[in-house]
Amino acid sequence: MKKRNEKQQLKAKSLKRSTCSLASSLDVIGDKWTLLIVRDLFFGKKRYSEFLASKEGITTNILADRLQHLESAGLVGRRPYQDNPPRFEYYLTETGKTLGPVLRTIVSWGEENIPGTMGPKQ
Amino acid sequence: MKKRNEKQQLKAKSLKRSTCSLASSLDVIGDKWTLLIVRDLFFGKKRYSEFLASKEGITTNILADRLQHLESAGLVGRRPYQDNPPRFEYYLTETGKTLGPVLRTIVSWGEENIPGTMGPKQ
Repeated sequence: MKKRNEKQQLKAKSLKRSTCSLASSLDVIGDKWTLLIVRDLFFGKKRYSEFLASKEGITTNILADRLQHLESAGLVGRRPYQDNPPRFEYYLTETGKTLGPVLRTIVSWGEENIPGTMGPKQ
Repeated sequence: MKKRNEKQQLKAKSLKRSTCSLASSLDVIGDKWTLLIVRDLFFGKKRYSEFLASKEGITTNILADRLQHLESAGLVGRRPYQDNPPRFEYYLTETGKTLGPVLRTIVSWGEENIPGTMGPKQ
């Protein structure tokens, strides 16, 4: 129970520091690596090793931290796919899936304003 | 001339590390404080002291770093408004203004998904 309470407090803390929805949103998703993991989940990646393999070269420390952050914020869930040793796969929650339009808008901005880029592979 | 060349190199470096427009965009705008400064500029703030006064409590070090980053990326310009001591005010370039839809999408996401928040004051 203690662990569960700590998690709920973290969620509340990260979500309620400001009443400005932009600042509050950026407390949750205003980080490059966080959104790249969400992108990977949208494109079907599920496992720690798959996120590590993405070409941007995320480090294990940052990956572990951001996955925990996404889970605490209720955007990502995880379920075991192997018992010994225990291994988990990750998935976007229903709330996590609502980030689709945010990613698409940023992709469009990049395509229009940064020469030589293209959207993530379909 | 040397200073100008350094600036152009930084701009090129920050804009061309990846061909994925999401990753490239996040190299430029994937930071909470960067987008909060852009928000402030959209709402008419121009001066260093005005950004410092925003309720999120940005520190002087982060503010100076992010303004320089925004200027290097071509999203923000600055012009002197006082000579002695020299003081500058900041403004969104035409490229900077194209971030409007990105901010609006994040605001909408927060309003729909984070209880108790509202858009920035109009």
